[in-house]
Amino acid sequence: MDKLSLNKHISSSFNEEIAEIRSHVMAMGGLLEQQLNNALKAIINADAQLAKAVIDTDLKVNDWQLQIDKECTSIIVKRQPAASDLRLVLAIMKAITDLERIGDETRRIARAALESFNSEQQELLLNLDNLGRHVGQMLHDVLDAFARMDVETALLVHKEDKKIDREYEVITRQLMTYMAENPHSIPKVMNVLWSARSIERIGDRCKNLAEYIIFFVKGKVVRHSSAEQLEQEIRI
Amino acid sequence: MDKLSLNKHISSSFNEEIAEIRSHVMAMGGLLEQQLNNALKAIINADAQLAKAVIDTDLKVNDWQLQIDKECTSIIVKRQPAASDLRLVLAIMKAITDLERIGDETRRIARAALESFNSEQQELLLNLDNLGRHVGQMLHDVLDAFARMDVETALLVHKEDKKIDREYEVITRQLMTYMAENPHSIPKVMNVLWSARSIERIGDRCKNLAEYIIFFVKGKVVRHSSAEQLEQEIRI
Repeated sequence: MDKLSLNKHISSSFNEEIAEIRSHVMAMGGLLEQQLNNALKAIINADAQLAKAVIDTDLKVNDWQLQIDKECTSIIVKRQPAASDLRLVLAIMKAITDLERIGDETRRIARAALESFNSEQQELLLNLDNLGRHVGQMLHDVLDAFARMDVETALLVHKEDKKIDREYEVITRQLMTYMAENPHSIPKVMNVLWSARSIERIGDRCKNLAEYIIFFVKGKVVRHSSAEQLEQEIRI
Repeated sequence: MDKLSLNKHISSSFNEEIAEIRSHVMAMGGLLEQQLNNALKAIINADAQLAKAVIDTDLKVNDWQLQIDKECTSIIVKRQPAASDLRLVLAIMKAITDLERIGDETRRIARAALESFNSEQQELLLNLDNLGRHVGQMLHDVLDAFARMDVETALLVHKEDKKIDREYEVITRQLMTYMAENPHSIPKVMNVLWSARSIERIGDRCKNLAEYIIFFVKGKVVRHSSAEQLEQEIRI
């Protein structure tokens, strides 16, 4: 076998293995979309059983992270990828860390769902649900972008996070006003506030995922760039 | 040059480069210890100028992360490290992500320090200061353990996080009681509550750092292990 065909062979093995790893990332991502969805349903419908299911299923999320992390380390050792191949493996390793932390946040929301709320407090939950759906869409979009390594969609997700931050601030103010008027409800409403924070953090994680896509495609770390800088940088 | 001496040569270049990267991680860690310290000082002494300095200095933390991340990618491409050498590089890449996020939390604490508190609220800050010092010690210890890749200290830090969580719960309850008694103070006291949360999260990050040390030395991912499992696993 000459050198070129050996390289080709190595490269095609790399491609097969990385395709499998990527399909695992997608499976992990799909599971997290479902977890977020269920955690929100649980808190809105006061469904303790569903909340417990979300908490239990987080173990599966953790298993995915451990498995994919191992697969990535092994592909670096075996295939010694360079340049863009290595960037892809490193982007995946970073992505699964954020996905696992999204799992932690959904578990926190599910825990808050074990609390029972009166009808007035139920109304406060509606805005939480809206915020959650918005972030759920972001998560869906960024996973889709990750599957296709699509920078344009990544950029849109990155921008969307600013809107999430504003929605989150509105909810925070609303909840603080409610607490001021109903001081006895503070411990209960704090659970809603932590859940809102968790959802907002999931938005941050989606933004991180968008950055890894840009890192992979453009070879640039954009973690600390503003939206305008980012737009400029990826257009070059 | 025969193969062995070539390997030796490669390995010694790797050692020199990795030593430099490690010294950068230590510099970044030292900066973060100082940032946490100053953020706490700023909030306790209502020192807006110091708070602003902490916020500005966070840019330096970000620069460190970008630089070290680049150095790690480059050493993987150039030196193609295997086994424990690769584990070390990957552990460093994970560690700097957590260190950078510790920077984000110190910036959040510094922002809360721009708020002014009355003398009664000042008393609430004392517990925050205690929690902050406790976590500051954890950060110091885990950085020290990272410098020496010392599993025993890493294990102690890992255990310490449980204590932080308990202290944090006590503070949360105390702050909620205060808010219930002084509903008009809710927005202000929420800043203290967010700061307590930030400190608690820094504790979580220190725990992550401890896990990377164990990952490097023992070659085992212990992210989702309980304290008892962990103790057993690293004794094997």
